[in-house]
Amino acid sequence: MIESNRLKNRGYSETDVKERRHIIEQKTKCDLSPIADYSFNSEKASKNIENMIGVTQVPLGFAGPILINGDFAKGRYLVPLATTEGALIASISRGMSVITSAGGSKVKIFNNMMTRAPVFRVDGIDHCVKVIEWINQNRRLLDNVVSETTTHGKLLEIEPFPNGRNLHIRLKFSTGDAMGMNMVTIASESIGKLIEKNTEAKMVSVSGNMCTDKKPAAINSIYGRGKYVVAEARIPEDIVRVKLHSTTSAIIELNERKNLIGSAMAGSLGFNAHAANMAAALYIATGQDPAHVIEASMCITTCENVNENLYIAVRIPSIEVGTVGGGTNLPSQSAALKMIDCFGEGKACKLGEITATTILAGELSTLGAQAAGHLGTAHRILGR
Amino acid sequence: MIESNRLKNRGYSETDVKERRHIIEQKTKCDLSPIADYSFNSEKASKNIENMIGVTQVPLGFAGPILINGDFAKGRYLVPLATTEGALIASISRGMSVITSAGGSKVKIFNNMMTRAPVFRVDGIDHCVKVIEWINQNRRLLDNVVSETTTHGKLLEIEPFPNGRNLHIRLKFSTGDAMGMNMVTIASESIGKLIEKNTEAKMVSVSGNMCTDKKPAAINSIYGRGKYVVAEARIPEDIVRVKLHSTTSAIIELNERKNLIGSAMAGSLGFNAHAANMAAALYIATGQDPAHVIEASMCITTCENVNENLYIAVRIPSIEVGTVGGGTNLPSQSAALKMIDCFGEGKACKLGEITATTILAGELSTLGAQAAGHLGTAHRILGR
Amino acid sequence: MIESNRLKNRGYSETDVKERRHIIEQKTKCDLSPIADYSFNSEKASKNIENMIGVTQVPLGFAGPILINGDFAKGRYLVPLATTEGALIASISRGMSVITSAGGSKVKIFNNMMTRAPVFRVDGIDHCVKVIEWINQNRRLLDNVVSETTTHGKLLEIEPFPNGRNLHIRLKFSTGDAMGMNMVTIASESIGKLIEKNTEAKMVSVSGNMCTDKKPAAINSIYGRGKYVVAEARIPEDIVRVKLHSTTSAIIELNERKNLIGSAMAGSLGFNAHAANMAAALYIATGQDPAHVIEASMCITTCENVNENLYIAVRIPSIEVGTVGGGTNLPSQSAALKMIDCFGEGKACKLGEITATTILAGELSTLGAQAAGHLGTAHRILGR
Amino acid sequence: MIESNRLKNRGYSETDVKERRHIIEQKTKCDLSPIADYSFNSEKASKNIENMIGVTQVPLGFAGPILINGDFAKGRYLVPLATTEGALIASISRGMSVITSAGGSKVKIFNNMMTRAPVFRVDGIDHCVKVIEWINQNRRLLDNVVSETTTHGKLLEIEPFPNGRNLHIRLKFSTGDAMGMNMVTIASESIGKLIEKNTEAKMVSVSGNMCTDKKPAAINSIYGRGKYVVAEARIPEDIVRVKLHSTTSAIIELNERKNLIGSAMAGSLGFNAHAANMAAALYIATGQDPAHVIEASMCITTCENVNENLYIAVRIPSIEVGTVGGGTNLPSQSAALKMIDCFGEGKACKLGEITATTILAGELSTLGAQAAGHLGTAHRILGR
Repeated sequence: MIESNRLKNRGYSETDVKERRHIIEQKTKCDLSPIADYSFNSEKASKNIENMIGVTQVPLGFAGPILINGDFAKGRYLVPLATTEGALIASISRGMSVITSAGGSKVKIFNNMMTRAPVFRVDGIDHCVKVIEWINQNRRLLDNVVSETTTHGKLLEIEPFPNGRNLHIRLKFSTGDAMGMNMVTIASESIGKLIEKNTEAKMVSVSGNMCTDKKPAAINSIYGRGKYVVAEARIPEDIVRVKLHSTTSAIIELNERKNLIGSAMAGSLGFNAHAANMAAALYIATGQDPAHVIEASMCITTCENVNENLYIAVRIPSIEVGTVGGGTNLPSQSAALKMIDCFGEGKACKLGEITATTILAGELSTLGAQAAGHLGTAHRILGR
Repeated sequence: MIESNRLKNRGYSETDVKERRHIIEQKTKCDLSPIADYSFNSEKASKNIENMIGVTQVPLGFAGPILINGDFAKGRYLVPLATTEGALIASISRGMSVITSAGGSKVKIFNNMMTRAPVFRVDGIDHCVKVIEWINQNRRLLDNVVSETTTHGKLLEIEPFPNGRNLHIRLKFSTGDAMGMNMVTIASESIGKLIEKNTEAKMVSVSGNMCTDKKPAAINSIYGRGKYVVAEARIPEDIVRVKLHSTTSAIIELNERKNLIGSAMAGSLGFNAHAANMAAALYIATGQDPAHVIEASMCITTCENVNENLYIAVRIPSIEVGTVGGGTNLPSQSAALKMIDCFGEGKACKLGEITATTILAGELSTLGAQAAGHLGTAHRILGR
Repeated sequence: MIESNRLKNRGYSETDVKERRHIIEQKTKCDLSPIADYSFNSEKASKNIENMIGVTQVPLGFAGPILINGDFAKGRYLVPLATTEGALIASISRGMSVITSAGGSKVKIFNNMMTRAPVFRVDGIDHCVKVIEWINQNRRLLDNVVSETTTHGKLLEIEPFPNGRNLHIRLKFSTGDAMGMNMVTIASESIGKLIEKNTEAKMVSVSGNMCTDKKPAAINSIYGRGKYVVAEARIPEDIVRVKLHSTTSAIIELNERKNLIGSAMAGSLGFNAHAANMAAALYIATGQDPAHVIEASMCITTCENVNENLYIAVRIPSIEVGTVGGGTNLPSQSAALKMIDCFGEGKACKLGEITATTILAGELSTLGAQAAGHLGTAHRILGR
Repeated sequence: MIESNRLKNRGYSETDVKERRHIIEQKTKCDLSPIADYSFNSEKASKNIENMIGVTQVPLGFAGPILINGDFAKGRYLVPLATTEGALIASISRGMSVITSAGGSKVKIFNNMMTRAPVFRVDGIDHCVKVIEWINQNRRLLDNVVSETTTHGKLLEIEPFPNGRNLHIRLKFSTGDAMGMNMVTIASESIGKLIEKNTEAKMVSVSGNMCTDKKPAAINSIYGRGKYVVAEARIPEDIVRVKLHSTTSAIIELNERKNLIGSAMAGSLGFNAHAANMAAALYIATGQDPAHVIEASMCITTCENVNENLYIAVRIPSIEVGTVGGGTNLPSQSAALKMIDCFGEGKACKLGEITATTILAGELSTLGAQAAGHLGTAHRILGR
């Protein structure tokens, strides 16, 4: 039986953290010492958590080096990955080794923006038409109100989606080096209030789910949210044979039957082997929002035989990462970002490119392993 | 420029970890001391990671107490949550407080199994028919081969999905208290090999994506994977007003326009506000696979006015959690599991119920906040 | 300005039809003589339409002969197709010619049932559990109530989908040679009322959309509704070259980039070129429900190179056709059914096999045309 | 056993039609006289069909009058509907009567364009970037090439979707009063060839399935294809009671549990009761492409209580209709178009508005019937 009285302490000091932890130890009769060892000033996490009682220590390893030929990531990288899934890093590293020995990966960001989509209640069609007209005629006002809430964010586009007494508007912003969710939420709230004031539409939510945030949604798998990235590699057949113990044709067949046809049959929005694994490990290591793994999982992996090379590519239209804000300032997370020179201003696109490339490597390696027929074996040896 | 020579150390001792970390520090000219502080024997992580160089410290807090009326979780719980998203725990805690003051949540597991779906190459329809016949006629053989790989797992059902020269079969297993992915992968591999040997079908992959693992897929949002859980609460109108500063009708309207209509318009498989946030924080804290947040995000949140109470429910058909294996043995993760009495054998269903209830609380609180119109405000104050 | 007075005539005689048509001619000042020519007794349509004023004459052609090797359709068929889309029949006929010259198609029905899914309002989880228990324990009662409404339909399975205060149950029936929608609706209504009476659950709708009828839905693309059919053909490379003016590899590449990758990128449930065209033309010709074209459009087309043959297959899990009831009794529709020996009892599976094969032929031909680069050309010459 | 020799007659004269029909009668031993009665010159159908042997007579009725307040459709209409589904027209007519007695429907077209999406094979990312650049820099050339193929169509926008060695581009056109599929196919082919010539990208298909045509696809349910239309009505409670024998609250509850929640649970792209039925009956009657019923089925129906009125709306983002070309010139089809003053130039938007309103009426009536609990009954009395 737990009473909530002394749990109400809301402080951020080490003493506060300790007090809460001790009360919980008493109440639950658990030894919580394993969560007590953290190596940073708990005040630093005051914008990241409430009711802090310690830390979860997620094992951190690295994969690589991986040679990347991007517009922002150029050269060899050792990629930090936090995971508890045995065999994952070994597998990614193998993929990186293969790619690097084949000359590295190519990677490109084709689009880059963050969205938020308020929903308004309108009276009906006539009112809806008027609200859309007002929005179209007052774009400058909307830009101004955005600029009052943020210096980094810019409103790029407004897409209206009328639906009876619902008017959803999808707002697209550039967000600099922040992932930008909070920035665009605050800006969208200001936009929404301005629309409310001028049109008598009622903003029912600043987030009407056409954003779409942290839910799998075709709107993002089609058009993207965050960074729309494609990464590719070309692996000569002999490297496929020697390093992946498989063949180009076996991997292509596997990709077709599993990632294209299998996913089609399952009604899936993800046409890949395990893009989410790489995204999760990298996002946790670098202080990203782990729920954004959902969007990253909507990756399409394609394989072809191009002049007796295995061509492999991943298309990930929704990589939502930032290098400022969020969890990026926490010590272990910023150390991980620094490992790949992605800490702070001017680095978000580089992080996007590294994310896509890491996913590419993981896809290649797992396809290779499955094509060679030893996925279960790998888990039996390396995993639990 | 990084060379990979001395990075090839594959050991698990503290010295090995340190050596790798130091080499990376040299190569990347980064100070990695923030990842160096971990409070467990690195050998313990040998089944969880390769190339370990330290740990990521994810701030850990708690939400609650939450009163749960489940079949397995009964009583008040303080729920451990690892996150870097400011305001999240405060919000979940608020939801838990509201639910608890209204008599607690009710929660039920309606189904419980884990899937793996190999894909076979067959010659065509005739061959496909024969393979399916062989499977149907040799169920006992298949059960036997499963029992050779696992004592915890049992084969429940085999669903064949013929498609030209592709035959996908979806295998459903009970998995005891493990989440069970590795268990069912190994068992499925044995099944697949037996089918290969007897039918000349070629198992192209033990995982043909009709499983579906770590990708959003309708097959799981419809039928479930892991635990199919529903949680509910009934909040009297006065509590809604006092604690959520909103009204039942405002929350119902919001849920309809956002979670039902907005998600429908976005082509989403998730009809909720942010189920993924709660799943991610709880999964990281308790050593679950964070990529399984994808399946958990396919939650449907419904709200109704029942006798002037706000009735709220979440349906999450794919909660994939375990209390043995995976990351659950790591010290901070097992401490978190112990906080909710979910460590070890016999606890997986309880963890499933707590997961669903935590999602319920987070949904309630966020709907309340958005209905009251202060989502952006909350982030402005508490977040980055 | 139209007044509704004399339009209220609800009779079915030729005089009634004429009276209504004449009033509309007066009111709309249109000459409706083109719809006046029908060659059957209008009383015959009394179960097919209300307010009859004449007929729409849809041009009817045939494609074939097509050689089919099915379990029900065996031999050569001339397939009736009603369409107004120029080039469609020519294209299908070309595909049939190719398939026939290559030895014909193979076709198989892997599953066969019709669904209806009532939704009940329950009080919440506890009540939901009780309702499910009652259903599980009273299966015989449910079978009995079904048998009171139909002699052809049998209840095969009941799948419950709990969701807060909603309980959806998906009922699967065998339906003999009727497509069966009305049969299962009536049976489901009886089942629903029995459940209502015994459990105090309230049946809100006999069709709660998990059926799913006449809407694209993953539940049907995954598991099927009606007949789950696969059809295939193997075309030697020389026939591909001579008759399709293309190559096996070009068609395979096209299928991959268009039907698999393109559809994946579009968030589609249909992975084919134009399955709907064939289904629509055949359904209209034979008196099927044209809205069921939606389900038929969720077809997956796959192509492979098998020993220098083009292997092509279609998987159509939801072919909903009947040979009794519906529009099948109307004279032109029954004549069309007779053309393929599919009129009356004992013919529904044959019609399902012919449908799938016709779709296969249309897919093959269009892929061939697009691979040869002359889709637009064909439309320019043959179409409008 | 059928031989194809004399079936090869490809003519369009009445004699040709008769010859083919007679040969089929001989070969199949069927009496095909029921398809022989058509009341137009078969040469007129030369652009609509090949291998013509007669017509399918689909019973044609009308629903209405319906009072429509649109931008194009203004006043009362009697809507022609071709169907074999008993009770359908009675139901739609009932809905129209309710709407009309409540002051009519409001309807609005929010967007209007037709798409085609070629897919190109590119060498990889670098090449893809260059192709996109060339497209962006040569928009005027592309406009010119379009104008050489059509005077009615205009290129509105080009959206590129890169994906490894695949580059899909979605082309949006205005198409005047034609539905426009053939027009945009021909224009897209010219665009594709120009891109091929200048960039060395290989157009693999003029239709790469991101169009998406005749397959259910989220890209269309989200953004629309053809006309994006919303229609609404407000029905006073007393009319709901008297005419629909139900209540506003019962209909709202039904819509929520069935059309929103049920469809969400089924992984559906259609959140409605039976939009496809109305679209199919109207499309067949007026010579539209019946396969476009698929896109129309992706309708969202919403219901609300607004000041004790039942507010009901449908959002149908993909109504693909035309009033010139296709089947619109055939006599019975053009007569039907004339009934609603939609024949020929300048009428496509009016037809779009009437389509949406007819769907609205059918939705209202069926929701009313199900809420009143007599769906099965209606079918029992009126249907087969």
